[in-house]
Amino acid sequence: MKRKSQSVLRAVGRPAATVSRPSLSSLSVAHGKRVRLWRMLYAHGVRNGTLAVLPLDQGLEHGPTDFFPNPTALDTNFQFRLAVEGDYSAIALGIGLAEKYMKEYCGRVPLILKLNGKTNIADDAEAVSPLSAGVEEAVRLGADAVGFTLYVGSPRQDYAARVAEELGADVVKLHEPDEDNARSPEPYRSLREAAPERLRRVVRSAGRVMVLFSGGVKQDNDAAVLRKVAAYMEAGATGVMFGRNMWLRPFDAALALTRQVHRILSRHPR
Amino acid sequence: MKRKSQSVLRAVGRPAATVSRPSLSSLSVAHGKRVRLWRMLYAHGVRNGTLAVLPLDQGLEHGPTDFFPNPTALDTNFQFRLAVEGDYSAIALGIGLAEKYMKEYCGRVPLILKLNGKTNIADDAEAVSPLSAGVEEAVRLGADAVGFTLYVGSPRQDYAARVAEELGADVVKLHEPDEDNARSPEPYRSLREAAPERLRRVVRSAGRVMVLFSGGVKQDNDAAVLRKVAAYMEAGATGVMFGRNMWLRPFDAALALTRQVHRILSRHPR
Amino acid sequence: MKRKSQSVLRAVGRPAATVSRPSLSSLSVAHGKRVRLWRMLYAHGVRNGTLAVLPLDQGLEHGPTDFFPNPTALDTNFQFRLAVEGDYSAIALGIGLAEKYMKEYCGRVPLILKLNGKTNIADDAEAVSPLSAGVEEAVRLGADAVGFTLYVGSPRQDYAARVAEELGADVVKLHEPDEDNARSPEPYRSLREAAPERLRRVVRSAGRVMVLFSGGVKQDNDAAVLRKVAAYMEAGATGVMFGRNMWLRPFDAALALTRQVHRILSRHPR
Amino acid sequence: MKRKSQSVLRAVGRPAATVSRPSLSSLSVAHGKRVRLWRMLYAHGVRNGTLAVLPLDQGLEHGPTDFFPNPTALDTNFQFRLAVEGDYSAIALGIGLAEKYMKEYCGRVPLILKLNGKTNIADDAEAVSPLSAGVEEAVRLGADAVGFTLYVGSPRQDYAARVAEELGADVVKLHEPDEDNARSPEPYRSLREAAPERLRRVVRSAGRVMVLFSGGVKQDNDAAVLRKVAAYMEAGATGVMFGRNMWLRPFDAALALTRQVHRILSRHPR
Amino acid sequence: MKRKSQSVLRAVGRPAATVSRPSLSSLSVAHGKRVRLWRMLYAHGVRNGTLAVLPLDQGLEHGPTDFFPNPTALDTNFQFRLAVEGDYSAIALGIGLAEKYMKEYCGRVPLILKLNGKTNIADDAEAVSPLSAGVEEAVRLGADAVGFTLYVGSPRQDYAARVAEELGADVVKLHEPDEDNARSPEPYRSLREAAPERLRRVVRSAGRVMVLFSGGVKQDNDAAVLRKVAAYMEAGATGVMFGRNMWLRPFDAALALTRQVHRILSRHPR
Repeated sequence: MKRKSQSVLRAVGRPAATVSRPSLSSLSVAHGKRVRLWRMLYAHGVRNGTLAVLPLDQGLEHGPTDFFPNPTALDTNFQFRLAVEGDYSAIALGIGLAEKYMKEYCGRVPLILKLNGKTNIADDAEAVSPLSAGVEEAVRLGADAVGFTLYVGSPRQDYAARVAEELGADVVKLHEPDEDNARSPEPYRSLREAAPERLRRVVRSAGRVMVLFSGGVKQDNDAAVLRKVAAYMEAGATGVMFGRNMWLRPFDAALALTRQVHRILSRHPR
Repeated sequence: MKRKSQSVLRAVGRPAATVSRPSLSSLSVAHGKRVRLWRMLYAHGVRNGTLAVLPLDQGLEHGPTDFFPNPTALDTNFQFRLAVEGDYSAIALGIGLAEKYMKEYCGRVPLILKLNGKTNIADDAEAVSPLSAGVEEAVRLGADAVGFTLYVGSPRQDYAARVAEELGADVVKLHEPDEDNARSPEPYRSLREAAPERLRRVVRSAGRVMVLFSGGVKQDNDAAVLRKVAAYMEAGATGVMFGRNMWLRPFDAALALTRQVHRILSRHPR
Repeated sequence: MKRKSQSVLRAVGRPAATVSRPSLSSLSVAHGKRVRLWRMLYAHGVRNGTLAVLPLDQGLEHGPTDFFPNPTALDTNFQFRLAVEGDYSAIALGIGLAEKYMKEYCGRVPLILKLNGKTNIADDAEAVSPLSAGVEEAVRLGADAVGFTLYVGSPRQDYAARVAEELGADVVKLHEPDEDNARSPEPYRSLREAAPERLRRVVRSAGRVMVLFSGGVKQDNDAAVLRKVAAYMEAGATGVMFGRNMWLRPFDAALALTRQVHRILSRHPR
Repeated sequence: MKRKSQSVLRAVGRPAATVSRPSLSSLSVAHGKRVRLWRMLYAHGVRNGTLAVLPLDQGLEHGPTDFFPNPTALDTNFQFRLAVEGDYSAIALGIGLAEKYMKEYCGRVPLILKLNGKTNIADDAEAVSPLSAGVEEAVRLGADAVGFTLYVGSPRQDYAARVAEELGADVVKLHEPDEDNARSPEPYRSLREAAPERLRRVVRSAGRVMVLFSGGVKQDNDAAVLRKVAAYMEAGATGVMFGRNMWLRPFDAALALTRQVHRILSRHPR
Repeated sequence: MKRKSQSVLRAVGRPAATVSRPSLSSLSVAHGKRVRLWRMLYAHGVRNGTLAVLPLDQGLEHGPTDFFPNPTALDTNFQFRLAVEGDYSAIALGIGLAEKYMKEYCGRVPLILKLNGKTNIADDAEAVSPLSAGVEEAVRLGADAVGFTLYVGSPRQDYAARVAEELGADVVKLHEPDEDNARSPEPYRSLREAAPERLRRVVRSAGRVMVLFSGGVKQDNDAAVLRKVAAYMEAGATGVMFGRNMWLRPFDAALALTRQVHRILSRHPR
């Protein structure tokens, strides 16, 4: 009992400037959930406790124009092949794509089944994000996790992180917070943070929830993409969830970039 | 396992300008659903993997004025007789018409039971489309499929196609997209596509979901109707769902036009 | 099989100017429902396949002022006695009145249990019509039918008729359509119909749903009331549902008028 | 059978100016409900088929300011003691007060459990009245009745009475209708009624539903309170439901006034 | 039976100026609930029937900016350690924090599981406070109580207290009412109360519901915090629920202040 108290003491006393990533072994999760998280953290991807997830819900959320730069990516085989050949920790998509395209890839890459989503046609303010599947479908499809999208509706990504923790998430996907303070309310407006501090503040705010950062719109410059990955991992993220920055590249380029991402993740074992 | 990977590779590498229609044999569907899809694709209609569906929900959706040009079509026997004598792949209507008129036609034409619908009286913006039947009623009535109407509310039919795929549809009915780009948002406004390209883009966007195109308002010119059918099939559609263009013609004319549609579909086996 | 097809052929080919009323024997209904419809069509009322229904929901829908012209009608015994002594096909009311007043009349007149209704206090536009009973209560009370009120909200009664058919009603109560075309949308505005044509159009639009016409506000002139009944029956209605035109008359006058209505209905056997 | 018809005939023929109160023995109610109504009508209170009910929901509905004139009434023991020592037919309150204060009074006074209620803070127009208990809680607490509040939202108390009857209430609590016709719609505005006529109209409108009148805001003059009770009973009410006019008086004064109310009720056996 | 009546008499007759706190032994609660309340009142905290509860939901309700003055408090270990080392009666937080951080503290401090909560991003007027857990989760986590937040939306804290009692709460957390009468409606505006009277009025309004007062925004002055605690307890509160005034202090300062709070509570046994 003594040792536990001390470890807590140390945790409380640690300087706020560094963030220690949550490790699976230290989390309080049931056996079944531990098995499924382990599969994504240590049996797929870089296998060192990091996560490289390939998401595909942009067709529903933004519409098919997202695929215009690379029409071959409209065929979901593209993403499944990339996930398998690129050895991703998981692929994240909805029930329609999972049922239609997963057959050849079953077991070769973990599935994160997205439970909800919405089109961008309705006005954002009134948008609802209806459920298209539930945990039962996830079990039937052999998924290792489910994804549920909440709209915290704020540039303050640290708030989204905290909400995820207080509501009980295991992993949360966030965006890199904007550096434009002018439009933010106080006390954010007065913050003078370099990008790394800003990222660390967000990760710290997620507490024991593992943080993934998304890649956002496609950047053509490979080095810029990799700099982002490195920055996120150094800030304490558990991994990345880059979609368009991967599958809007030609297949071989996407595969090559994926391998470079893996190289960065491999420097952050836990 | 080797062959499967290769077929995937080929799929990814195929040129975007041609669209290969999904075939029943290649789809991942449970046995029961395969039986029911097979019945419509290969045991009725042209029996070559195409679909000619006769829809009848205009009385509910638009009101009885739709029947004013051909009052005999107000009697649902007209549509059932046309579906049977014209050898349609299926007839699509709601529970009220199915229960009242199907008796003499049971087994002679597959039924697609429409589960929801709405009148055009309420303002479109706030319209809800309440359920009038469920899967249980469909089973009781011996239906081979159910139809559910979603209002994606957009001239961008490729978006509707993608939504259908991501949410898990097997078949989607779409409209031919409008060529008026001026009212569309970017990047649609800048697209310079001939009609066939536009149709192929929509079909491609549906991925492994079979696409039916609807006929819309009645055209008096038979040749124009047939040109549309040909164009849709050449763009990769699995079939057509023409209602008013069929049953607003006198019975014998509707039957003759149906046979010409079959002739076009017979050139697109799969 | 031959004969059935022919009867269908004849149905399709019949001139639109006459309307043949649906007959119970030709309808596709389950045995239990056939028993209950038969009881109202052939074991009560005129017993020739017509329906004379006495409705009582005006106290809820309009308020007690509806009874001001004949305060004795506020006592539901008035309507039950009139229904029994006047030999109505059924009485139609809600669960409160059925439970409190039906004891002495059980079995002597069929009950149509109204399942929903609303007061006129809330604004019509936002009005909801909550359920006050369900099918289980109807069975417990020995009802032969249930009534559900839909607000199609339109002067176009043919639309309401069609909606009733597409949603699966067995009997629909409609109002005589207004002849004021000026306020109607096209193509109604351009219609030049005499009253009988207008009624026939509405009845035809109901297809195999039996049509009852309501009487609306009280008319003091007996002959005018009877002319309406005759017109409705000649237009193809299965019967009438007159409330205030009956029970706002003194009991003996209501009884006498009821008998004259029966005489008209007796000329329309089926 | 003969006698029943006659009694019905008499009921229909009775002059509208007098109102005969519904008697328990003549009502169609199941055995269990008859037991519970009997307990309030004949085993508690005046025991002659009248009802004297003590309500306590003003703290929730109006807020604690209702108790400012008599702070000792804030302690629910005040009302329970008054109900027991004053021999009320029932006490009516919600689950919170019932659970916390009923222990010493169990069985000594029937409980009417209020199932819903709302604060007066939200705007009345949008107010919802959420459920705080259900029939299961009522059974667990040994209640003899449940109370459900409907907002008919009208000065026309006869409408509320009719709605209660059509929806199936056994007892309805109403307010004495206002004599200010100017703000009422027609035909109410044109009514020229003395107060007794107005009350009788409301009671008649409730049909076989027993009517209780509430006392409203506190009146200091005992005689005025008693005149109201007498007027209500003479108009055909089954009883009264006076809260603030009782428990905002000092305990002994409330008890004395209660006894005078009982004396009036004792003149109206049934 | 005699003694009980007398104790009731005394309760009714007691002067309104003093408030006697509800004692667990006198409350009507089921055995299981009594066990759980006893654990918080007599087996943890000051163990004399008072409650010192440490709340942590500010991250969800206000966002992470609440932690900016003391970033180490962002790690929930801070609050759990404070609750255990400071011997609080209970810690109150939501399911996410309970599941992730409670492991080392299980059994060492009672858990009050918060069932609902909302972010401050949506406009307060339309805010909904969705459920994030239910009683089943509370049982699984070994919680001794659940917390449910109602928005009575009023400066009149006595109303919130009464609502809690009428709806059936066991314990209610309130804020100290504002002394600014100018913005309040009558009769509050005319009240001339010193702070102690104001507090007593609120506590009295809660009846047999135990009252906790919250601490609100952080005050740097320790003596001011303790004066508030003393005032609350003297007004009849059962305890306090101070969050930011505790865990926004450095750990040792928070612990020292907690002990001074305990000293005040120890003077109010029951």
